[in-house]
Amino acid sequence: MTNQTIVNVDQQDLVISRLVRAPRATLWKAWTDPKLLKEWWCPKPWTTEVRAFDLRPGGAFYTFMRGPDGGTSDNPGCFLEVIPQARIVFTSLLTEGWRPATPWLAFTAVISMADEGVGTRYVATVMHPDKATRDRHEELGFFQGWNTCIDQLEAFAQQSH
Amino acid sequence: MTNQTIVNVDQQDLVISRLVRAPRATLWKAWTDPKLLKEWWCPKPWTTEVRAFDLRPGGAFYTFMRGPDGGTSDNPGCFLEVIPQARIVFTSLLTEGWRPATPWLAFTAVISMADEGVGTRYVATVMHPDKATRDRHEELGFFQGWNTCIDQLEAFAQQSH
Repeated sequence: MTNQTIVNVDQQDLVISRLVRAPRATLWKAWTDPKLLKEWWCPKPWTTEVRAFDLRPGGAFYTFMRGPDGGTSDNPGCFLEVIPQARIVFTSLLTEGWRPATPWLAFTAVISMADEGVGTRYVATVMHPDKATRDRHEELGFFQGWNTCIDQLEAFAQQSH
Repeated sequence: MTNQTIVNVDQQDLVISRLVRAPRATLWKAWTDPKLLKEWWCPKPWTTEVRAFDLRPGGAFYTFMRGPDGGTSDNPGCFLEVIPQARIVFTSLLTEGWRPATPWLAFTAVISMADEGVGTRYVATVMHPDKATRDRHEELGFFQGWNTCIDQLEAFAQQSH
């Protein structure tokens, strides 16, 4: 039974779909081991500190980034859904144990991985509460930032493969 | 691994713990069948329309209430966690498919049910993003409202038992 308020999904989402030249199992490992995640998670020369990584629904996912100029980015959140080797969903609107947050940027990200040829189809779908937040995220450099991270993930996976 | 920001949980939560004189299985059924839920979900003479009820993590949970004076209360949301016969977690911060929302009142509610004597220990823990939202929820009549609904649930379960 569903009769939810209709939202214009296209206007609230940012989507990146990439064919990554690395095996899905390697990408999954690079994503789900925080020691590996920190190597590619944010565009270099920024660095990532993984403050919490509890890969299960309701488990904490908290990264803290530092830039060479002293800038920082504080990103608490939690995982919502985990399907091994295939799908990770996380959000900034809730933290550990489903506790509501007040994020500086409200979003839910769905990461999916599927075999495609010799590589992996890697899709990031980022949902926002409204078009204004989506547009702000884009203006903050979403496409450049997330694509750079996927480049870094691909290079890291190819090295460690 | 967890090193989440510390929050003062006591100051952000509202909790009701009640011994309900009805079997847990009956309460579970009254909660999880939308045709039954609508009978006790909001304080009478207000009425509940269940617009979506998809009892699984990420599934829509959307109620719309109407009062005798023409007032309405629009409450889209989604389920976060479902443990049959024992625990339901839902939130107003996300809707169907984990999509971020802009709720008029931001909260996550954890409902737990456990056998106790001849009845059921029914605990509602409602978490908010900050103390101001918690206090506003209390001022809106949280304790009276939710306790009235639990009275209605108890009476309904005893009738249908």
